[in-house]
Amino acid sequence: MKLPAHGANPHYLYENLGLAMPDDVIDFSANINPLGPPDALRDKWDRLYEDIKVYPDPEGRTLKGKIAAREQVKKQEVLVGNGAAEILALIGRMLAGKKVLLIQPTFSEYEKVCQTNDCEISHYMMSDKDWGLDLEAIAEKIKGVDAVFFCNPNNPTGIYYSKEELLFLLQKCQQHNCYFILDEAFYDFVPAYENMVSEIAHYPLFIIVRSMTKMFSIPGIRLGYMLADAAVITNTAKFQPHWSLNSIALKTGELLLEEMKFVAETVQYIQKEKQAIFSFYQQLGFAITDTQANFYLLKDPLHDNQHAFLLFLLKEGIVARHTYNYPGLEGRWLRFAIKKRQENERLRGAMTKWIKSQH
Amino acid sequence: MKLPAHGANPHYLYENLGLAMPDDVIDFSANINPLGPPDALRDKWDRLYEDIKVYPDPEGRTLKGKIAAREQVKKQEVLVGNGAAEILALIGRMLAGKKVLLIQPTFSEYEKVCQTNDCEISHYMMSDKDWGLDLEAIAEKIKGVDAVFFCNPNNPTGIYYSKEELLFLLQKCQQHNCYFILDEAFYDFVPAYENMVSEIAHYPLFIIVRSMTKMFSIPGIRLGYMLADAAVITNTAKFQPHWSLNSIALKTGELLLEEMKFVAETVQYIQKEKQAIFSFYQQLGFAITDTQANFYLLKDPLHDNQHAFLLFLLKEGIVARHTYNYPGLEGRWLRFAIKKRQENERLRGAMTKWIKSQH
Repeated sequence: MKLPAHGANPHYLYENLGLAMPDDVIDFSANINPLGPPDALRDKWDRLYEDIKVYPDPEGRTLKGKIAAREQVKKQEVLVGNGAAEILALIGRMLAGKKVLLIQPTFSEYEKVCQTNDCEISHYMMSDKDWGLDLEAIAEKIKGVDAVFFCNPNNPTGIYYSKEELLFLLQKCQQHNCYFILDEAFYDFVPAYENMVSEIAHYPLFIIVRSMTKMFSIPGIRLGYMLADAAVITNTAKFQPHWSLNSIALKTGELLLEEMKFVAETVQYIQKEKQAIFSFYQQLGFAITDTQANFYLLKDPLHDNQHAFLLFLLKEGIVARHTYNYPGLEGRWLRFAIKKRQENERLRGAMTKWIKSQH
Repeated sequence: MKLPAHGANPHYLYENLGLAMPDDVIDFSANINPLGPPDALRDKWDRLYEDIKVYPDPEGRTLKGKIAAREQVKKQEVLVGNGAAEILALIGRMLAGKKVLLIQPTFSEYEKVCQTNDCEISHYMMSDKDWGLDLEAIAEKIKGVDAVFFCNPNNPTGIYYSKEELLFLLQKCQQHNCYFILDEAFYDFVPAYENMVSEIAHYPLFIIVRSMTKMFSIPGIRLGYMLADAAVITNTAKFQPHWSLNSIALKTGELLLEEMKFVAETVQYIQKEKQAIFSFYQQLGFAITDTQANFYLLKDPLHDNQHAFLLFLLKEGIVARHTYNYPGLEGRWLRFAIKKRQENERLRGAMTKWIKSQH
């Protein structure tokens, strides 16, 4: 059985499992904002048609300038990418043949881009008891590597690590001439986010990766960016194909950077939905992660492997994200996005049905 | 003086030359179809909005299937790319550290992607007397390299080389275990195009690169593809970032593959405009290339370097493509796209003015 390496595109999942796909499927496997895209994009969509007729600015200067202004960094400290996935691929290319450390379980693309570029990969495994970091143990591993990937809040757990912990690791990396790559794809969902951007000025090997896909629900457009010292940006950008960002992505990005009210409303909405569904889960006795993002891990503690549960939900038209390709999880948890009220309620219905089927 | 490495984005050119940009500039530096995009795309644009909300199929299976069906190859012999520029970058990555041969003057991206990947680059120089190929001399060079890039019709000359010549080179490559990379970005403009696709079945190191940008005037969308033996596709695709093609590109590609009537009308239109403007040039005594594509090289034979001519045209609001970064041209020619009747007429007006200014 080979399951897809990512969430989204649920037809692959049904197909690979040999299941008929119900008509009214709800996809909880893609971690995107249920409230988006913002209305402003719909309103301007028609005008964007004109932009397909001209080559995009290969430097993406306007978007870069707007990101730099908002983040209070220099333009040369920004690289825009064809999705955060491209940014990660470029970082992987820069790290070709080097030694990298992954803090597992985490987003599978880090390992993939490192493998593609013949990196030597080692892992630090968090325990699914508390998802805590043994900072001294990680520091020990940092001594022997050239780069560390860290996802915060972490995908797939949603756990958010403190700035204090990150700074400890960043300093260790600095001491050992090691890149610290902080993937903040979901940072803007975190109610009490602690900004790390100003550290770029102090740590020349510190890289922040961001995505505009999740908050703004534009996975079909592909848009991400990276913040780092200008020298690191140059070393990464040289591997980027010419005109890698299409015109629609560039213009959409410029427009969405204005949507701060939408972001604030989203955070509030997600928190409210989280509270509602989490108290339901606690009543039912499910184990869940203390997420600060718009997704969480869940398991039925009566089962070690959640495969039967995954299949049950699929038949109910509920698509969860399997965790077989997450080292340290191996199918013992399922991941769900926090979606709209009505969708979360349908999820609750299916969960209730599952619990009943077990007794 | 540092001029942009590509056509399009004319504001960079004016900026770098310290010239004020007139209000009504016509950009002859971008080689795109003046008749496009096809109306069908405008008609469906509104519906494409829905596609931005979902992750693109990371495999682009529907588009791949349609290309495979049209080209009569297997699906596994197709790779779709975020523009032909990405396809070239992936090929460059596959060739990292290897020896490559470029047939100059040609599209500058081949050299760029090879440099980025530390390839050892050698050149075969065509003479701007007749742009002919000394096949035996090239065959001799093929013995010492791992890959040859060949652009047909060639950018920037528009010269189209015969299938017989290509097959000779392809066989030499085969004998010496050398990739033959045929960039056909402008193939669909050639009135008497000789299809090379069926050779993929016979030559495991043969790669065809195509772009949908030029014929369909969608440079802002980014869409290209590559045809090759399945093993070569696998070796190239592994370097491609996940979800590299956005949903708009995938859906647009599917739609545009149906637009064969638009292609035929374009070829006819371009040929007619070419005849009109070429007989004008001959009267004025300009040297021009015998193009089969939608662009050509031109020079005023009274000048060795065309810089004054380039500047004169820019001030007239006519943007030509400089040729400083083409080895073998070094500014001695200018490149122009064939555009709409009215635009070509404005070009003629500016050319007439230039000739008068010279006497």
